[in-house]
Amino acid sequence: MQLLSETVQGYLANSSMIRRMFEAGIELRKKYGPENVYDFSLGNPDLPAPARVVDGLKAFAEKADQPFAFGYTPNAGAPWAREALAKWLSEDQGVSLEAGDVLISVGAASALNAVLKAIFNPGEELLTFAPYFVEYGFYVSNHGGVLSTVPSRPETFAPDVEALEKAMSPKTRAVLINSPHNPTGAVYTLEELKEICALLERKSEEYGHPVWLISDEPYRFLAYDGIEVPSVLPLYRFAVCVSSFSKNLSLPGERIGYAALSPLLENRAEFMAALTLTNRILGYVNAPIVGQHIMVAALGASVDVDIYTRRRNAMAEVLAEAGYEFNLPRGSFYFFPKAPGGDDKAFIAALTQECVLGVPGSGFGCPGYFRLAFCVDEDIIRRSAKGFAAARRKFA
Amino acid sequence: MQLLSETVQGYLANSSMIRRMFEAGIELRKKYGPENVYDFSLGNPDLPAPARVVDGLKAFAEKADQPFAFGYTPNAGAPWAREALAKWLSEDQGVSLEAGDVLISVGAASALNAVLKAIFNPGEELLTFAPYFVEYGFYVSNHGGVLSTVPSRPETFAPDVEALEKAMSPKTRAVLINSPHNPTGAVYTLEELKEICALLERKSEEYGHPVWLISDEPYRFLAYDGIEVPSVLPLYRFAVCVSSFSKNLSLPGERIGYAALSPLLENRAEFMAALTLTNRILGYVNAPIVGQHIMVAALGASVDVDIYTRRRNAMAEVLAEAGYEFNLPRGSFYFFPKAPGGDDKAFIAALTQECVLGVPGSGFGCPGYFRLAFCVDEDIIRRSAKGFAAARRKFA
Repeated sequence: MQLLSETVQGYLANSSMIRRMFEAGIELRKKYGPENVYDFSLGNPDLPAPARVVDGLKAFAEKADQPFAFGYTPNAGAPWAREALAKWLSEDQGVSLEAGDVLISVGAASALNAVLKAIFNPGEELLTFAPYFVEYGFYVSNHGGVLSTVPSRPETFAPDVEALEKAMSPKTRAVLINSPHNPTGAVYTLEELKEICALLERKSEEYGHPVWLISDEPYRFLAYDGIEVPSVLPLYRFAVCVSSFSKNLSLPGERIGYAALSPLLENRAEFMAALTLTNRILGYVNAPIVGQHIMVAALGASVDVDIYTRRRNAMAEVLAEAGYEFNLPRGSFYFFPKAPGGDDKAFIAALTQECVLGVPGSGFGCPGYFRLAFCVDEDIIRRSAKGFAAARRKFA
Repeated sequence: MQLLSETVQGYLANSSMIRRMFEAGIELRKKYGPENVYDFSLGNPDLPAPARVVDGLKAFAEKADQPFAFGYTPNAGAPWAREALAKWLSEDQGVSLEAGDVLISVGAASALNAVLKAIFNPGEELLTFAPYFVEYGFYVSNHGGVLSTVPSRPETFAPDVEALEKAMSPKTRAVLINSPHNPTGAVYTLEELKEICALLERKSEEYGHPVWLISDEPYRFLAYDGIEVPSVLPLYRFAVCVSSFSKNLSLPGERIGYAALSPLLENRAEFMAALTLTNRILGYVNAPIVGQHIMVAALGASVDVDIYTRRRNAMAEVLAEAGYEFNLPRGSFYFFPKAPGGDDKAFIAALTQECVLGVPGSGFGCPGYFRLAFCVDEDIIRRSAKGFAAARRKFA
């Protein structure tokens, strides 16, 4: 008897490629020793959490024997945590947010799902620029929507707003952007964001329904060479920012994130009531209470960005020396070079033979490229040079 | 412009009754002082977490400055946590479970949603006995399914298996039970469970697809007068148990729960792969890492059940003295008495006027009754006697 739903049966059949890669990594570590495997496949931050995280946890532990210490919080988060988050976001993003404008979530993933559930009618469309994070497709499908993609501009991976306009229709319920960008390292400029917002404002009027701009920003803190990461919240009434503390506080396992509404939206209270409801009925209920305490204790703290800068520069040297074509990331911790030979899966197979692990661009809706995550020690990056060079030579 | 999806717009319109009650509670506390409001409306455990929870948290805090201390865990949970949970569940429920048979989840709610997502095709039906926890309807609807109810047996709220059989059709994908039961305090006997399992086995064969038995068991630890809470896992191959540590460890805010499969299921690995996937793509990603550490440290610990026993007895005295008709709960921490006068909403309004808060049975698909949660101090229960008596007299 078939155990699973048709949809999930299909998902499982298609996910076997990624699993095979994961298993190949385990095999390589067994065969050659973990120190000889150069794993750039995962965005799992290796830096320890900042001291304020640990201190916040210890302070909470001291009062954890009290009644309700681990009690439910309201579905949108504990009032004191929402208050603190709104204050910090206001300063950080140059907007004026109140506690009622933010929802604390089980990581950015739950915030994004809560937003999608609140706005999507069956068959409506979410547009995003390719390449893109593969989970987006599952998330919009969870709520009856459909993901469609628009190519980013070649070379720079900047948003192609003309192509976006051409792709839009009255079925378009939302546009999802992600800057600093996974997997390309692109950072959208203020001009580009303004152009997107102007288009969406015009289309919202034309269609008679909001075209939401969902901005997924877990790498907001991580931009290089002093460039700015502009906020969408002051630019557009139908903008929602979703993010998490997984990367800047090295907290991915505790699942703590948020959604924030634009102060330009008139009916924010209604929209927040909907998010609070969807956050509840999707089974998130409330963000983990220990995580809420940690977040408040550590707001504004960050892992050391200089470490990532040095890693980026080391990886750029390794790739340039071996003759790869790539864009220098302006933010996030990913390179997205061209796959030598053009076939990203074949190239990743060759790279794996050299004990270097990356992800084919096909996994991000962008064949012909591959992704390298540089949230690993600089020494590992430097020692991987030989493997990168050897794999490159095979496709010379 | 309408901000929300049609579905969520409809949900919000209907949820206003519960919100009005919640607001009434706030008003009453302001007007009469919090000590004069007797709030039995929420199942939010008031007992502090057991010492092993606090000790486990402190031990984790001591090593929280290490890299990856708060890192992602695999989507089904950290291997060491799954191992420990499987061992404990095996002992607790008299079955033989391995790490691969359990998934650690963001509370029972996420486990339940992950299971529903894995098995439901659009339009298929979930059957449950009324009264029932209102969130079940949202959860099954999240995944395109439909909730239908079968009345429990009158007076005892035992499962009516004949009525269940009559309600079943090839569209029935799952039956959901909840014992010890919210809101009635009923505990299903081994005989009753066997009868349900035999029916579902027969129907699975007849329909050519599994009819899953989902057993929601957050109150498994809380049964009175020495009665046993039998496990469904050894009884039926398509049984899945979902539960949490919210109540027995007073941990509801940290969101830590699990799903466990029956060892009788042959393709458990396939089903667990599906649950691992749905747990990921629904945006839960992994159960909170701090919660996983706490759970392992405190497996087998429990809040003091004697305290609940005394509260149950106190509440029974109060209700009996005031002339209410009710069943003595055999488990969980709820009474579900008949609403004097028959109109549960009118009665709850009268009770609220006496500063006593409960929930109308209509909120559980069972008008004519009301729910009282006795996870509050015994003193509050005793002092509420006057209010219960006064409200009762109005409907004499």
